[in-house]
Amino acid sequence: MTLQYALELIGTFVFAISGALAVREREHDLFGAGFTGFITAIGGGTLRDVLLDAHPLVWIGDIYFLYAILLGILAAFIFPNFLSRLRKTFFLFDTLGIGFFTVLGVEKALSLGVRPEIAAIMGMFTAVMGGVIRDTLTNEIPILFRKEIYASACLAGAILYLVLNYFGLSREWNMLLSISTVISIRLIAMKYKLSLPRLD
Amino acid sequence: MTLQYALELIGTFVFAISGALAVREREHDLFGAGFTGFITAIGGGTLRDVLLDAHPLVWIGDIYFLYAILLGILAAFIFPNFLSRLRKTFFLFDTLGIGFFTVLGVEKALSLGVRPEIAAIMGMFTAVMGGVIRDTLTNEIPILFRKEIYASACLAGAILYLVLNYFGLSREWNMLLSISTVISIRLIAMKYKLSLPRLD
Amino acid sequence: MTLQYALELIGTFVFAISGALAVREREHDLFGAGFTGFITAIGGGTLRDVLLDAHPLVWIGDIYFLYAILLGILAAFIFPNFLSRLRKTFFLFDTLGIGFFTVLGVEKALSLGVRPEIAAIMGMFTAVMGGVIRDTLTNEIPILFRKEIYASACLAGAILYLVLNYFGLSREWNMLLSISTVISIRLIAMKYKLSLPRLD
Repeated sequence: MTLQYALELIGTFVFAISGALAVREREHDLFGAGFTGFITAIGGGTLRDVLLDAHPLVWIGDIYFLYAILLGILAAFIFPNFLSRLRKTFFLFDTLGIGFFTVLGVEKALSLGVRPEIAAIMGMFTAVMGGVIRDTLTNEIPILFRKEIYASACLAGAILYLVLNYFGLSREWNMLLSISTVISIRLIAMKYKLSLPRLD
Repeated sequence: MTLQYALELIGTFVFAISGALAVREREHDLFGAGFTGFITAIGGGTLRDVLLDAHPLVWIGDIYFLYAILLGILAAFIFPNFLSRLRKTFFLFDTLGIGFFTVLGVEKALSLGVRPEIAAIMGMFTAVMGGVIRDTLTNEIPILFRKEIYASACLAGAILYLVLNYFGLSREWNMLLSISTVISIRLIAMKYKLSLPRLD
Repeated sequence: MTLQYALELIGTFVFAISGALAVREREHDLFGAGFTGFITAIGGGTLRDVLLDAHPLVWIGDIYFLYAILLGILAAFIFPNFLSRLRKTFFLFDTLGIGFFTVLGVEKALSLGVRPEIAAIMGMFTAVMGGVIRDTLTNEIPILFRKEIYASACLAGAILYLVLNYFGLSREWNMLLSISTVISIRLIAMKYKLSLPRLD
């Protein structure tokens, strides 16, 4: 098992926790929370692969992703208070997750032969569209459209990865730098309540 | 024409009625109601087949499904009061429909070679995602997230079908038992207002 | 570069403007507005091609569509007041766009070998589903379900195109007539506040 594969499973696990807990304040039952965790975990990568016609989808071709999701949902059911606190205090799961999945999505798209511009969009989609689908289903304004810098941090990280890749930086350093960039932008934006200007 | 094919067309017809009538209290015009019936009828199976890369989609490859939908919409337009009463009093169309389409979705997924765990999810998706897409488009909280047991009944029926299938029960008996299970869970949950516990 | 290709790029450009400006009254930042423009521009054609399994998707296979979208978003950012006024006063972009994309969607579907009934639906989807996805993501009631005649104008134009095509009218005249029909129905409906009857 490579490090990347382990990270993918962990990222999926973490997104499932984040999704299941996201509806905690709402009136959802356990099934609704589990469904939300599932959608959050698979949504972005599924959209990417459907758009790029990359079949079988990751979670359909490799059952361990489903098990990672079920474990994440189970963890959210058993330790809701502890995990909610982690989530709220540190934006932990979500921020790590979007950084990692942005780069993963870019790489997958590039490996399928699309142009870098498309790969950048696919990286962002991989990271944020699971949450967008979750928010849409639960009638929330998708996090993408709320004030703080979120998806634009992913897009910035995706573009950085493509630029560094173009200049021949090794994959390991590139992943580290690009993921850190997404996470840093997101954390700084949250801390100082930074947002992009509005259209007016 | 086999019995199963006839049932599929009838199920599609019934889902179209259910969808067209679901927006009756809202301000939708005839086109909006027809569109809603269409989406409700094709949504679940379409999502399943797009995720599993099974083309052509059922309703694109076989025009009779479109005709069944148009007939269902027409019926909803001509007998709205009679059909609404049936729908409300007996939860008739929707409950029969989700039972039948759960099993159908499981079978289709298995026939495409996926693992049983994935087939169970696809069975539930086939049954409920048409309604979920409909509710999302019309800005309702999807029925999946409301209090009563709904999608979880489908998942239970799908898992039962897979277990009985594993133990070699004949397809006819298995369909009968699994569909009845979905319908019974749903009706009992509605009657006694049962719901799964909440996450808290 | 053929006339049709130029029109497709212009139509995409115009839909991106329309989408980016559609969220102007809301609290979206520049990224949210750009994302909305992007989804509006690609949504309908993407849905059509995913349903018909036509890969690569137009905007993935031909990067000029992405550039047309970025130009449209940029125009919306630089001239928001001027373009908003055009949009509101004349329903200009949206109405031209849905007429043109209806016919384009019908032709693409026919070229992929589906039946005319399916091609009519695909024409309508191409024209309106980008806006529907946009409205769903931003928690608006999709324009499809609001009172005025909108998607039904597209469906009427699509059916007209198919009928005239069946009777052998030349493609140029057919496009002109069918697109004009969509635009005329839409404009007349807006002017006289016409709507289809409700289901009751």
